Amino acid sequence: MRTVYLDNNATTRVDPDVVRTMLPFFSDQFGNPSSMHSLGASVGASVGKARRQVQALIGAEFDDEVIFTSGGTESDNAAILSALEVMPNRAEIVTSAVEHPAVLTLCAHLERTRGVKVHTIPVDRRGRLDLDAYRVALTPKVAIVSIMWANNETGTIFPVAELADLAKEVGALFHTDAVQTVGRLPIELKSTAIDMLSLSGHKLYGPKGIGALYVRRGVAFCSLIKGGHQERDRRAGTENTPGIVGLGMAAELALKFMEDEATRVRSLRDRLEDGILQHIPNSFVAGDPLERLPNTANIAFQDIEGDAIPLLLGRVGIACSSGSACTSGSLEPSHVLRAMKMPYATVRFSFGRQNGEADVDRVLEVVPAIVERLRGPGRRSAEDRQPGPCLGSTRTGSS
Amino acid sequence: MRTVYLDNNATTRVDPDVVRTMLPFFSDQFGNPSSMHSLGASVGASVGKARRQVQALIGAEFDDEVIFTSGGTESDNAAILSALEVMPNRAEIVTSAVEHPAVLTLCAHLERTRGVKVHTIPVDRRGRLDLDAYRVALTPKVAIVSIMWANNETGTIFPVAELADLAKEVGALFHTDAVQTVGRLPIELKSTAIDMLSLSGHKLYGPKGIGALYVRRGVAFCSLIKGGHQERDRRAGTENTPGIVGLGMAAELALKFMEDEATRVRSLRDRLEDGILQHIPNSFVAGDPLERLPNTANIAFQDIEGDAIPLLLGRVGIACSSGSACTSGSLEPSHVLRAMKMPYATVRFSFGRQNGEADVDRVLEVVPAIVERLRGPGRRSAEDRQPGPCLGSTRTGSS
Repeated sequence: MRTVYLDNNATTRVDPDVVRTMLPFFSDQFGNPSSMHSLGASVGASVGKARRQVQALIGAEFDDEVIFTSGGTESDNAAILSALEVMPNRAEIVTSAVEHPAVLTLCAHLERTRGVKVHTIPVDRRGRLDLDAYRVALTPKVAIVSIMWANNETGTIFPVAELADLAKEVGALFHTDAVQTVGRLPIELKSTAIDMLSLSGHKLYGPKGIGALYVRRGVAFCSLIKGGHQERDRRAGTENTPGIVGLGMAAELALKFMEDEATRVRSLRDRLEDGILQHIPNSFVAGDPLERLPNTANIAFQDIEGDAIPLLLGRVGIACSSGSACTSGSLEPSHVLRAMKMPYATVRFSFGRQNGEADVDRVLEVVPAIVERLRGPGRRSAEDRQPGPCLGSTRTGSS
Repeated sequence: MRTVYLDNNATTRVDPDVVRTMLPFFSDQFGNPSSMHSLGASVGASVGKARRQVQALIGAEFDDEVIFTSGGTESDNAAILSALEVMPNRAEIVTSAVEHPAVLTLCAHLERTRGVKVHTIPVDRRGRLDLDAYRVALTPKVAIVSIMWANNETGTIFPVAELADLAKEVGALFHTDAVQTVGRLPIELKSTAIDMLSLSGHKLYGPKGIGALYVRRGVAFCSLIKGGHQERDRRAGTENTPGIVGLGMAAELALKFMEDEATRVRSLRDRLEDGILQHIPNSFVAGDPLERLPNTANIAFQDIEGDAIPLLLGRVGIACSSGSACTSGSLEPSHVLRAMKMPYATVRFSFGRQNGEADVDRVLEVVPAIVERLRGPGRRSAEDRQPGPCLGSTRTGSS
C-alpha cells in the first residue's frame, strides 16, 4: 500500500541531501569541535558553515545570532526563561491562546510556581489574534511576548513584525515560535524588531533533535542548559554536529526551493480543499482564509466525532492529523480549536516537498465515502447531535 | 598521515552498526512517534526497544526509568533542577570539586541567583573524594548530591554506591554523572540507592545530541524542558528518534563488548603508561592508580608547559587532550588538576574500541623526542622553573 504522507506539520521526511551531509560526521569527522586537535577543528569549521546557512534562511544580520539547540521546544523554553532572568524587574508574559505547548505549558508552570502573570491573548473564530487585547496587555511590567509566527494546527499567520514593534514600545522582549514558518515563508529578521525566534530541524526536512534559537545581538541572554562554553556560553553540551550540519543543509535547501515549493503546495492544498468542500456537504476550512501557511489545510466535518476520519484514512495509507481526538483516552482537547470556539472535529492535512497531485487525488477519492459512512444510517442524525464534552481535542497540539 | 585517536573521553567515533540502525529513521521511518497514524506508531515501538536497551546497560529495574534527553549536560541540569523543585524545603547541594562543568556551572549559577548553598567536596592529590568532608556536608538540608561516577580527566572512580547510601541517611536524592562510566564499567543500578544517573550517547560510540537520564521509579521529577507529553511528561519536544535508536544500539553493543574491551584497553593503556614512565624522566601518572577507568591515562610531564605536547602530537596525527592549556587565551584552568593540587601540565590519552597496539607504539615512538625537545637547551631548566599562574588549565574540562 502506497503511503500518502500529509502530516508535514508534525514532522518531515529528511531530505536525502541532508542525510548525505550528516553521514561523515558520524564516522570520519566525528571529532568534538571543542577539542584542540585537527579532528575537532575541522568539525568546528563545518558548524560555522551551518550557522551561516541558518542565518541566511532567517535573514539574521550576524551568524552569531544563531544558537543551536535540541529543537523547537528547548528554544521556546530557553527564550522565555532567559527573558525572566535578564529582566528581573518584570514578571509578566504575554502570549496567545493558540501557542504550542512548549510555550503554554512553561507559562502555566511559571504562573503556578513563580508567580509570573501570564496574559493569554484570545483569538477569533478564524484563529486571528485579538489585537485590542494584545495592546491592553502590553505594559512595562512585561518581560517577554511570545507569540507564534504561524499556528501548527490551522496555519494561521500572526502579524509578528507588527506585534514586535508594539512590544518594543513598552520595552518588552519579543519572541516568536517560528517552527512552522521557517523554510515555508521568506523571513528577514534584520528588518524586524523580533528579538528571539525558535526553529526546528525536523519541520524543514532536517533531522529531529536539532533546532536553533535566534537571539538578536545586544539582547542579554541567560542559557537554559548550563555547563561548558559551547555556543559562546549560550547552550552548553557537546555540539550535535551531525544534527547541526544537517540543519544547515536543510536551511540551504529551504532557501533555494522555498518560493517554488510554496506555490506548488498551495496549489495542491487549494485543490484538496476545493475538492472536499465541493463534494462533502457541511465541511469547511478552519483558520484564517487569507493569512495562512500555504501547506496547511484544517478541515472541519460537521457531525463526525474525534479521530474517526484520520483513523480510517490511516487504514488506507493516508497519514494526517486529527483536530479532535477525544476518542483516545490519553489525548487532551486541542486548545487551538477550543480557543477558536470550533464545535466540530477537524482534520489537518499538511503538505510538503514530497507531495504531488496523486496524493490529492487519492484523498479526494476516499474521503467522501468515509464521511458518508461515518454520517450514514445508524449514526445519530445532525439534528440530535450536540457538541460533546470533548469536542476539539486533538493530537496536533504538540506538533 | 594515519590518525591515532586517543581522545575517546572527549568523544567517540560512532559505531558503523549504530549508523546503520539510525539511517531508516531519517528516511522511511521518519514519522513522529506522537502521531496516531502507523508511520508514527512503528517509530514509537522502536523508541521503546531503545529504552529497554539502555535499561539493560545500566541495570535499571524498569524501562520507564530511562528518559531520553539531548545529552549528558541536559541530563545533569535536569536532575539537579528537578531535585530543588520537588524538595522545596531543602536548598543545599553537595557535589565535588572535580565535577563536569555541566554540574559545577549550574551549581555556581544557583548559588548566585537562588541562594542555594553548594558544598563542594575536595579531593586529594590522587583525585580521591574527601569522605570525611562529604559526611559533614550531608544534613537534612541537602536536596541532592551530585557526584560523578568517574572523572573525565583522570578516570578516577568514586564509590558512588556507598556515597548514595550515605545520602539516603539524610533523605537527600543522589545523582551521578556517569557519562564516562556507562559502557565502560558494568553498572547495576537496581542494586544501588542511586536515584538519578546521566549518560551520553557520544561517549559510547553512539551519536552526539542524545543522552538519557535515569530516574528511579518513585522519585518525584519535574521536567527541565516543558511542552508536549513526550517521555511521559518528563522531557518535552519531538523525540530525536534516529538519535534514540542509535543510542539504543550503542547500549546493546556496549553491553556485549564491555568486558572484553575493558581488558583490552586496560592493557593498551598500561603499556602506554609503562612505556612513558620508563623512558621519560620526571613523568608520572595523575589520578588514583587503583580506582580508575581502564581506558584513561592522564600523565604529568614535569617542566613542560600547557598545551605543548598535545599540539606537537597533533602535528604528527595523534589526537589527545591537554590537561593544561593555559597557552591558549580562551581556555580556563582545569578545575580538576587544581583541585588535585597538580603543579604540572598533564596529557590525557583516552583509549577506545577502535585503538590497537600500533597506536601505543606510535605514541611511544614520538613522545620521548617531543618531551626532550620541549625540555631541551634554550628552555628554562627545571631548577628555575616555578609553577606558573595558570598551571593546570585544560581543555578536557568540558569533555
